[in-house]
Amino acid sequence: MAKELTSRQENYSQWYNDLVIKAELAESSVVRGCMVIRPYGYAIWEKMQAVLDRMFKETGHVNAYFPLFIPKSFFSKEAEHVEGFAKECAIVTHYRLRNDENGRGVVVDETAKLEEELIVRPTSETIIWNTYKDWIKSYRDLPILINQWANVVRWEMRTRLFLRTTEFLWQEGHTAHATREEAVAETLKMLQVYATFAEQYMALPVIMGIKTESEKFAGAVDTYTIETLMQDGKALQGGTSHFLGQNFARAFDVKYLSKEGQLDLVWATSWGVTTRLIGALIMAHSDDNGLVLPPKLAPIHVVIVPIHKTDEQLTSISEKALAIKKMLENEGHTVKYDGRDTHKPGWKFAEYELKGIPVRLAIGPRDLENNTVEVARRDTLEKKVVPVEGIAAYVTGLLNEIQKNIYSKALKFREGKTFTVNTWEEFRDVVEVKGGFAYAHWDGTPETEARIKEETKATIRCIPLDNPAEEGKCIHSGRPSKQRVLFAVAY
Amino acid sequence: MAKELTSRQENYSQWYNDLVIKAELAESSVVRGCMVIRPYGYAIWEKMQAVLDRMFKETGHVNAYFPLFIPKSFFSKEAEHVEGFAKECAIVTHYRLRNDENGRGVVVDETAKLEEELIVRPTSETIIWNTYKDWIKSYRDLPILINQWANVVRWEMRTRLFLRTTEFLWQEGHTAHATREEAVAETLKMLQVYATFAEQYMALPVIMGIKTESEKFAGAVDTYTIETLMQDGKALQGGTSHFLGQNFARAFDVKYLSKEGQLDLVWATSWGVTTRLIGALIMAHSDDNGLVLPPKLAPIHVVIVPIHKTDEQLTSISEKALAIKKMLENEGHTVKYDGRDTHKPGWKFAEYELKGIPVRLAIGPRDLENNTVEVARRDTLEKKVVPVEGIAAYVTGLLNEIQKNIYSKALKFREGKTFTVNTWEEFRDVVEVKGGFAYAHWDGTPETEARIKEETKATIRCIPLDNPAEEGKCIHSGRPSKQRVLFAVAY
Repeated sequence: MAKELTSRQENYSQWYNDLVIKAELAESSVVRGCMVIRPYGYAIWEKMQAVLDRMFKETGHVNAYFPLFIPKSFFSKEAEHVEGFAKECAIVTHYRLRNDENGRGVVVDETAKLEEELIVRPTSETIIWNTYKDWIKSYRDLPILINQWANVVRWEMRTRLFLRTTEFLWQEGHTAHATREEAVAETLKMLQVYATFAEQYMALPVIMGIKTESEKFAGAVDTYTIETLMQDGKALQGGTSHFLGQNFARAFDVKYLSKEGQLDLVWATSWGVTTRLIGALIMAHSDDNGLVLPPKLAPIHVVIVPIHKTDEQLTSISEKALAIKKMLENEGHTVKYDGRDTHKPGWKFAEYELKGIPVRLAIGPRDLENNTVEVARRDTLEKKVVPVEGIAAYVTGLLNEIQKNIYSKALKFREGKTFTVNTWEEFRDVVEVKGGFAYAHWDGTPETEARIKEETKATIRCIPLDNPAEEGKCIHSGRPSKQRVLFAVAY
Repeated sequence: MAKELTSRQENYSQWYNDLVIKAELAESSVVRGCMVIRPYGYAIWEKMQAVLDRMFKETGHVNAYFPLFIPKSFFSKEAEHVEGFAKECAIVTHYRLRNDENGRGVVVDETAKLEEELIVRPTSETIIWNTYKDWIKSYRDLPILINQWANVVRWEMRTRLFLRTTEFLWQEGHTAHATREEAVAETLKMLQVYATFAEQYMALPVIMGIKTESEKFAGAVDTYTIETLMQDGKALQGGTSHFLGQNFARAFDVKYLSKEGQLDLVWATSWGVTTRLIGALIMAHSDDNGLVLPPKLAPIHVVIVPIHKTDEQLTSISEKALAIKKMLENEGHTVKYDGRDTHKPGWKFAEYELKGIPVRLAIGPRDLENNTVEVARRDTLEKKVVPVEGIAAYVTGLLNEIQKNIYSKALKFREGKTFTVNTWEEFRDVVEVKGGFAYAHWDGTPETEARIKEETKATIRCIPLDNPAEEGKCIHSGRPSKQRVLFAVAY
């Protein structure tokens, strides 16, 4: 195999980087911390976008577009937002280049300095609520249910492809409501949309929950999250949905006239997922041979490879392959036929395993005689010879089975890595040795939370929704606790 | 009518601005020169994107994503690019904010200064060709056929919603080829894709042609364009496709090993259309009552409005309306039923005329009795009472007819505004008084071109493809000319 990967066992982190590069999903760009998303990686993002966009529209949302730049002063308007939000961001200070006097290219024109610096959006609450101020006069203007697909920039010191990059792509929903109840319902509705997307499309089981005070979004009243588990036992936050209360309405003075004729502050939510989900998809399912993609998000569902010795064989096989391709396409599948004679079948097999194509069909001279194909499924690497007759229905069934199997496998993995721990030793054993989720008692104070993080790197991923009440003792301080919360070391 | 527009006659420019704002397509943002694209305007962009994206993929292209930021030094690498390309751009110089010592918000952290400034992309040739350098080794790696959907920034002093804004949305295709012939063919293929899109979807007739030296893209060998005519007689460039020769390959040292084992520079194209097309769509077809949208790009095809006096009437009409809505949706149309009793039918009629919904159905008590609906078409404002039986097929036919009619009207308008002129007086009469396209002889020199522009504001929009050879005298210099070129005052 030309493009051998580091194994997960040997070095999980290196395996991930190798895989992203060798499967041609993305690469680091010359601009520090920014990535180039290559066509195959971008095709996965397009699949994700199409599903999410449909789900957003089915839940009543519309798309819009707000400016890339935000005036610096906006960041000071919502107190917690400015305090809590990372101040690492890209700052535009000038608006013109000029030719260098020495003829050595271009330099910044110092006379073209902005009066107020502009920040490349790290998130858009401030500019959007400043706009909503003009759109909202009365209860008739509510709710506003808007989503934006955009790029955002957060200056990161340590970056990893997809997981943490200075620029990334995302969607950010920003909704405005007349009542607290409606806004809370919206927050939870979108959390559920994310959970459904993760489980049904990404084949990734999630735990829905609420963040602690110290982990929540700067400016939010409550941050809800979907938490997932990767194969190295680390957690990854898949998406967040924030109930913002009236914080941004207060900061930007957004009030509405209620039915009763009263002037009230508007209630807000925001919610987002990013290209980070591609990183989660890779890390959750893939193996030492390469990507394992759930069929619902795979850019190509089926690849057909001819096995031949002579040119005549290739001609006959190609004819058969193209007929099968047509049958599968009529079922709605995306199919690639790789009839190149510049590469050997073995090379192609390895290549498409690396790329995670869910189903591979191989057709050789004997298959032609018997009117059969060899079907290989990527998730289990099992092979089976199958009659061409009924192949479309067979592949459709197989793709559904693969989708389910990938989910089941991930769920089983998570179950095997989820522990209920009662002592500090047990806790450390999970988060530092075994890896995985630890359900543990916590005394509810940010001080204890901070100390646990300092000592073990583990954080409270969330307080799961519908968490059962249970009396217990904090694993760290020994003080009384009323419920277990979910700990893990996280990406 | 609550939202009366300035008439086109009275003030075309004001009419356009009024329309963009009142139809809730877009508005100026607090950030100078940047717009907010509102949901209704963005829905038109989504329709455009969906069609174009399909056309790009059908012609073999894939999408990818490259960084928002470009190192300043990249702009100096291609000599014409840096000379010709506007130097007005957003420059990122710092990467951190800090709390102001006086507690008055945030200030730029001067210690976080970038070693090399980053430019917010005004176009991506440089960063993309710097990346292609690593992707291209041999002829087997070619062609590369990539498109990117992205936001770009060009610092504009005078802006107009959609037509010229500091930030705008666009797509930029960047392709790499082994031969000159292949790159030229690609350039022309994409020009044809743009022309087809404009004519068949935007209902906008175009003239395809090549730009003169002074109007071409900085760094291109040849720039091809589709030119359209607006209702005020001014031309608007709808999209461009550039044959870049080996200029960017030379600047970024991108070579490939040919089949013959020779190291050659790679050939390039780039091509793009922007949110400006929304401006063209508005200005080409709309009238004093509001938008006129071609059905193929209209976010909503049909609106149904009940006409009632009593609540019982509304109930019966709603039932009928929703049944009709269902029938139309089964035909693939997007339908809105506006059963609100907070607004009168007359208000709704005006509102949906403003929004350019191609077909309006009104249902009153008499229609219920007769099993009919009143059908109004937006393009001609004609009304007709039609039986409910067969309504879906009727509306489908009507939408097709509206699409064709809008195109025919625009074509007829352009024909009436296209003049063949032979003298300077005739030329000035067209470009300064009548408005429209003037086919005129030109001596082929940039000096004459510049003088004509200075004296009349008219520019050479293009040298049309397949332009007939014709001996003549330049309308300005009187020197010999071998062909007529297309002049107009342009947006």
